[in-house]
Amino acid sequence: MKVAVLGAGDVGRSVAELAGEYGHTVTALADSSTAVADPDGIDVAAALDRKRDEGQVGPASPDAALDGEYDVLVEATPTTLDDAQPGFDHVRTALERDRHAVLANKGPVAERYDEVRELEVASEGSVRFEATVAGAIPVLSTVEDYGPGHISAARGIMNGTANFILTRMAAEGLGYEHVLAEAQDMGVAEADPTFDVEGIDAALKCVILANVLAQGERTYRLDDAEVEGITEVSGSALELAHEDGRTVRLIGEITGDTVRVGPRLVPEQSDLAVSGTTNIVQLETDNAGRLNLSGRGAGGPETATAVLSDVGRLPEL
Amino acid sequence: MKVAVLGAGDVGRSVAELAGEYGHTVTALADSSTAVADPDGIDVAAALDRKRDEGQVGPASPDAALDGEYDVLVEATPTTLDDAQPGFDHVRTALERDRHAVLANKGPVAERYDEVRELEVASEGSVRFEATVAGAIPVLSTVEDYGPGHISAARGIMNGTANFILTRMAAEGLGYEHVLAEAQDMGVAEADPTFDVEGIDAALKCVILANVLAQGERTYRLDDAEVEGITEVSGSALELAHEDGRTVRLIGEITGDTVRVGPRLVPEQSDLAVSGTTNIVQLETDNAGRLNLSGRGAGGPETATAVLSDVGRLPEL
Repeated sequence: MKVAVLGAGDVGRSVAELAGEYGHTVTALADSSTAVADPDGIDVAAALDRKRDEGQVGPASPDAALDGEYDVLVEATPTTLDDAQPGFDHVRTALERDRHAVLANKGPVAERYDEVRELEVASEGSVRFEATVAGAIPVLSTVEDYGPGHISAARGIMNGTANFILTRMAAEGLGYEHVLAEAQDMGVAEADPTFDVEGIDAALKCVILANVLAQGERTYRLDDAEVEGITEVSGSALELAHEDGRTVRLIGEITGDTVRVGPRLVPEQSDLAVSGTTNIVQLETDNAGRLNLSGRGAGGPETATAVLSDVGRLPEL
Repeated sequence: MKVAVLGAGDVGRSVAELAGEYGHTVTALADSSTAVADPDGIDVAAALDRKRDEGQVGPASPDAALDGEYDVLVEATPTTLDDAQPGFDHVRTALERDRHAVLANKGPVAERYDEVRELEVASEGSVRFEATVAGAIPVLSTVEDYGPGHISAARGIMNGTANFILTRMAAEGLGYEHVLAEAQDMGVAEADPTFDVEGIDAALKCVILANVLAQGERTYRLDDAEVEGITEVSGSALELAHEDGRTVRLIGEITGDTVRVGPRLVPEQSDLAVSGTTNIVQLETDNAGRLNLSGRGAGGPETATAVLSDVGRLPEL
């Protein structure tokens, strides 16, 4: 397939780099202010070098990517909330052109899911968004194949930064601020870690998963989720938990009509208590009990594999 | 889709029972000597009652199912080795009629994989076999979506009977014969447990997975696997392992050209050391590290969900 990539951050760059290995041609790459486009395929290496050396991917404006030739538009620009712009408009443009859209950007499917599905119904193109929930872990594909109607609940650890911090606090007996600083030094937490440590990132993923499981019966937005982060978790709480064979993890849950993210006590030995930056999603199924899916929930190449899995599942246009 | 089910054991009966919930019509059900067929859909409940009360599903011969009307033939007759008959011929019949075949029967894709693929290439129909590897756990779908060429190795616990026995031996300090008898009483092990405790069942699954990962470059058969079961694992070996923080599990591994099943020491806390009848498969990926998939690897409804996931992924004929 011909793939146009919007976004030249870690995920966009990795998608551009790996697309060829999956048999696809990258026909455009855009960052926030520039683009390079070629209906026969861009020189990906050159574009990435230019981005690294000059701060821009190409000579053209981003519209050259959005309006150029492609079968699939990969939306890998930064997640934005509320109106989810400009990501939402990017998805709309692709669908109105009867092209496919594959999202790594959580905004449109977390905040305007019903509108995205309406645009999809009216289009020859399809929308897929595996990369928006737990990176490389095939959660949405599994839900789709299993049948969303046959899954009664889901829960998991879907933010590696928060999980890393809690794991370190428990393992080393260190306080939150100390471990956060460590995580920032290691690049596991960002300079502004709010999205991760306040549970917002995990909540967005849960909202998206809830939207898929609801199968159109209702639409969730971030505001519908009850969200509490890890900033108030103390070293002493973790010690107390440990004495009881438990620990504290930031758990996201979708059950019935509720979407909730917050710190929770879990048995140290439970499948759910994955460590470090690992993510896990547990699906409670009607006919096959519990399915556990765990692995890397974030990272450029990791998230790119989810994008490329989605591209592989799209029908020919 | 119209679905004809060959096999009225646990899996075949569950497929017939659940197909309607997934939007499909069962147009035939056959056991080893009889069948009931109706191009507009059989009365599944009546057929299952007849099977339970009279020992046969219908008045017709099994050919009525195989030669009747369907989009998908579900092959859920008992796994046979070597020539994998009559399962192989059932698959061939469906494909030569340009229909789809979905297998729960491991034989054809463990012992004659290349021939199955050749028949598929020559047919309008497709072959899928998620149910042949680790029941409800979406291993093959994940491998397919991820790209078999991007997975370097796989390992796992794929036989719940053997894992249950080893888990009980380790937990209770009991010997193999004792726990095997317990497992048979509970219905977790069969009266003839050979396939499970000698590692053959696990090896068949590993061979199938190896065939998928090899992408046609070579074909594996059961004879190509190095297979050792759990019959020689002693309680004292488990105690010794425990003192070192390890335990013994029956692990199947596919790496490079090797397919191997045997008891192995694993750290008690490792993700791999699932307990009881739970199964797990770990995929080592090129771009996203390790993916862990665990859940129920066996059971009528559990395996039926894998069959029905496959049916859902088939293209319209």
